[in-house]
Amino acid sequence: MTDFYAEHRETLDRALETIRTRTYWSPYPEHPKAYGEDAPGEGRAAFEARLGAPFALDQPASGGMLVPDEASPYGLELGITYPRAGVDELVAAAETAMGPWAKATPEVRAGVLLELLARLAARSFEMAEAVMHTTGQSFLMAFQAGGPHALDRGLEALAYAYREQTSVPRSVIWEKPQGKRPPLVVSKEWRIRPRGVAVTIGVSTFPTWNGYPGIFASLATGNPVIVKPHPATILPLAIFVEIAREVLAEAGFDPNLVTLAVDTRAEPITRELVLHPAVGIVDYTGGPEFGRWLEEHVRHAAVFTEKAGVNSVIVDSAEDLGAVFRNLSVSTTMYSGQMCTSPQDVFVPADGVRVGDEVVAFEAVARGLADAIAGLLADDARACEILGAIKDPEAVAARIEAAAAAGEVLLESREITHPAFPEATVRTPVVVAVDAADRDAYAREFFGPVVLVVRTASTDESIERARAAALDEGAITWLAYTTDPAVEQRIVEAAVDAGVGVAFNLTGGLFVNQSAAFSDFHVTGANPAGNASLTDTAFVANRFRFVGIRRQ
Amino acid sequence: MTDFYAEHRETLDRALETIRTRTYWSPYPEHPKAYGEDAPGEGRAAFEARLGAPFALDQPASGGMLVPDEASPYGLELGITYPRAGVDELVAAAETAMGPWAKATPEVRAGVLLELLARLAARSFEMAEAVMHTTGQSFLMAFQAGGPHALDRGLEALAYAYREQTSVPRSVIWEKPQGKRPPLVVSKEWRIRPRGVAVTIGVSTFPTWNGYPGIFASLATGNPVIVKPHPATILPLAIFVEIAREVLAEAGFDPNLVTLAVDTRAEPITRELVLHPAVGIVDYTGGPEFGRWLEEHVRHAAVFTEKAGVNSVIVDSAEDLGAVFRNLSVSTTMYSGQMCTSPQDVFVPADGVRVGDEVVAFEAVARGLADAIAGLLADDARACEILGAIKDPEAVAARIEAAAAAGEVLLESREITHPAFPEATVRTPVVVAVDAADRDAYAREFFGPVVLVVRTASTDESIERARAAALDEGAITWLAYTTDPAVEQRIVEAAVDAGVGVAFNLTGGLFVNQSAAFSDFHVTGANPAGNASLTDTAFVANRFRFVGIRRQ
Repeated sequence: MTDFYAEHRETLDRALETIRTRTYWSPYPEHPKAYGEDAPGEGRAAFEARLGAPFALDQPASGGMLVPDEASPYGLELGITYPRAGVDELVAAAETAMGPWAKATPEVRAGVLLELLARLAARSFEMAEAVMHTTGQSFLMAFQAGGPHALDRGLEALAYAYREQTSVPRSVIWEKPQGKRPPLVVSKEWRIRPRGVAVTIGVSTFPTWNGYPGIFASLATGNPVIVKPHPATILPLAIFVEIAREVLAEAGFDPNLVTLAVDTRAEPITRELVLHPAVGIVDYTGGPEFGRWLEEHVRHAAVFTEKAGVNSVIVDSAEDLGAVFRNLSVSTTMYSGQMCTSPQDVFVPADGVRVGDEVVAFEAVARGLADAIAGLLADDARACEILGAIKDPEAVAARIEAAAAAGEVLLESREITHPAFPEATVRTPVVVAVDAADRDAYAREFFGPVVLVVRTASTDESIERARAAALDEGAITWLAYTTDPAVEQRIVEAAVDAGVGVAFNLTGGLFVNQSAAFSDFHVTGANPAGNASLTDTAFVANRFRFVGIRRQ
Repeated sequence: MTDFYAEHRETLDRALETIRTRTYWSPYPEHPKAYGEDAPGEGRAAFEARLGAPFALDQPASGGMLVPDEASPYGLELGITYPRAGVDELVAAAETAMGPWAKATPEVRAGVLLELLARLAARSFEMAEAVMHTTGQSFLMAFQAGGPHALDRGLEALAYAYREQTSVPRSVIWEKPQGKRPPLVVSKEWRIRPRGVAVTIGVSTFPTWNGYPGIFASLATGNPVIVKPHPATILPLAIFVEIAREVLAEAGFDPNLVTLAVDTRAEPITRELVLHPAVGIVDYTGGPEFGRWLEEHVRHAAVFTEKAGVNSVIVDSAEDLGAVFRNLSVSTTMYSGQMCTSPQDVFVPADGVRVGDEVVAFEAVARGLADAIAGLLADDARACEILGAIKDPEAVAARIEAAAAAGEVLLESREITHPAFPEATVRTPVVVAVDAADRDAYAREFFGPVVLVVRTASTDESIERARAAALDEGAITWLAYTTDPAVEQRIVEAAVDAGVGVAFNLTGGLFVNQSAAFSDFHVTGANPAGNASLTDTAFVANRFRFVGIRRQ
């Protein structure tokens, strides 16, 4: 059997170093060209071969093949069916598979999982097609966020899990002096006791990026994982399950350490699955309502949630308002606001924004942003590359309408026909000016292409409104523009209090939506946007326990 | 202001090293003589000065002075009254106090807390008297477990909390290459965001040993702590609160970072307190019933529980049965079985125990253990030093009776008149032989002086019964005697599966009840005996969050 640990040890060591230094690093290239000339075509062919066919997985599947609610936002006919299993058989298979995996060393588990990451990396083009055509992301975003960036997040979680497991020595001789008598000598040893069957509940928009951290953290600490994809976005995680099972079997472990649990909106199985008494861990990314249900009802397992919230931009002052608009126009339109990190509320004081010696009036700021967005999306083909397609068109249309009704529309949402995929729903954002006094207009999430410019009495009110929205509804990102150090200080205090990461004065190539593995914590766990963070120690430490053995 | 961090840095560094090496170390001497000739008398005088008087604390206390349910197991008239506060005023005071403490660096907080530990260490004799006369422990146990060993546990939690907070750099320059373009350069900074008001719910038997870990972990990570002692054991934690407030004020912080919340059995306030929405952390040590209630009902806060369980001894084979009995007779009688680590069920195969080439019959083993206990406790004065006094005499008497009724009594429980404290309830354990088939007879906790010798068909049945009892009812310790490596291996596997620490073949000066700070994990968190471990990373990592600040 290949010694995967030895083979990949340098990657793990570098990951361990980087979670400590938090500098830039990635072992998985984000540039498609790095994968060779043939990779795009091979990936596309592999993806196309899956269309209209049953997805074969040699796992428990007493329910036959399921015809899913999986429709491509680009209008491609997917037609893939998936093996359907009962909750009890999945859990039983996971429990059976667990033993030897739980007893393996952290090094052996890490080696197998590093090999899995490497195999997944080699399949990044196939994964990109799968992510693009199930989520509606543009190809480049699907490639990066679905492939290398997701693998970075998986490796990061693996590194945290490995570090934590090896923070206690395997054994030690403990010697306590006893005055004149001989010392008390005890030989001690510690074993790792995984928590139990893990369930990962996938999200419809970033199935791998949000799914890998929990999956790799659970596997690395000895737990089997049942992967339950979103009913409308199954293929990317099914491909993950297929590759994971291959690597596990090749390494001599039971492939049922990773299984797929599929369901439909009409016949959901998630509640039954997570309430199974053998389940010890639940990872969830998705809407706030079901996230809250999990937090309230799953008492017997560790529950890690990443929900959503109201992300805010606070505009106080700037050196170059044009640069502000350029950055904001990208961050508010990227994937049509369908990222849990997309900014939604842009707080601007009624008195305007100081730019050098001038003050630019609220109306001019709001108009400037709307114009920048309109300009960025003026060309339909380019707009499609930025916006991607809408994942859930009916719900998004309703939100655009509700947002438009809440204030003064500065820019209408526009439907665009995608040049390559005429069936896709592509919509530019609606930009609406609302008043801070009208809390209902902005202090809730409009997931999708909605930008709200909120008129406040002052920057202090902007800060207070953003803070309250974060504490009440959750928030994952804040972006602030100010040239005043005292204002910056107040924003930092509010962000820490509200438990929201904050970025200042982004005007270049960094966008607030982007969160870098090994460096940025995604979600803090300190407001209703989620109870966990990708990835901190708390995300891994509760997935296993140390059991001590003493011998005299 | 004194730089407490600089003053105590070596102690912290050594603690950080020891939680990694897990070798023996303690900065607080466990030998009373190490504290000087005057210390015992001064401690006794300080304790006596508190009797029959109001306990003065300059903290919120709108409810006047409370006459508590605090009665000494030794019969001493305590007569101390405590300031009584409403839940809302305690929480409000804690929230007000939190700000500057939360913003202080981990070093500043650690320095203040190390100074607090040093001040507490200097008061160990006063604390010993308080612990002895509220819990019923013997003086030596009260001194060691209530003083230095409790301080070790507090320092251990502080070290874990410090390590975790400093695992992420304060700031870094993150630089991502951009091919031919200039690199993306982002300045990043991370702030610590404490979770919120912490509540520590004290236990009646080891108030400081079990209380300090949560208290120090919460304080070290920036949270204020409301200390809610057991209604029948208030004084030790009240003394802690008094000293903590002095040190905090001296260091320039609001003393309301640590407050005392007292109540009575008739008018309990714990539920109201922990359900307050501002509470972010709850630490609990105590009975399983209320622990389960906390785990099920407190959804908005992180809940750490240490409950209790059925601790087992598995006797398979031994080199010297006399040595086994000597060790077991101490561990089963120490503080009358009122330790959550005390062994209760001694599983012995019906066919007997192999000793060298001989097999000693079940009856002889059971009789040998009973005789060893009787012999150890034959002298009343010596027995009183070992047994201490019974904390909750009615409940314990009922349990002794119930245990006696469940099988064949091998040794009757005997009441002893304490030579120094005639009012004290002192009882030797009842030793009862029961059958493994009678699950109700042994698979539940008889907290107090009860030893059950359980007849099984074989060692494999012993293991299986102990495993099932641990998984169903919880267990904190296992002790096993075997000379057979294959049996030892099976016991280790079962212990890991059941999430119970196991000690093998203790025949000398180490007793299974003892758990050493910086080395042994107390409770694993992996069975119903508790959901947390003293102290692992999971015990501290969830008490705060990192919030990132990015600047371009």
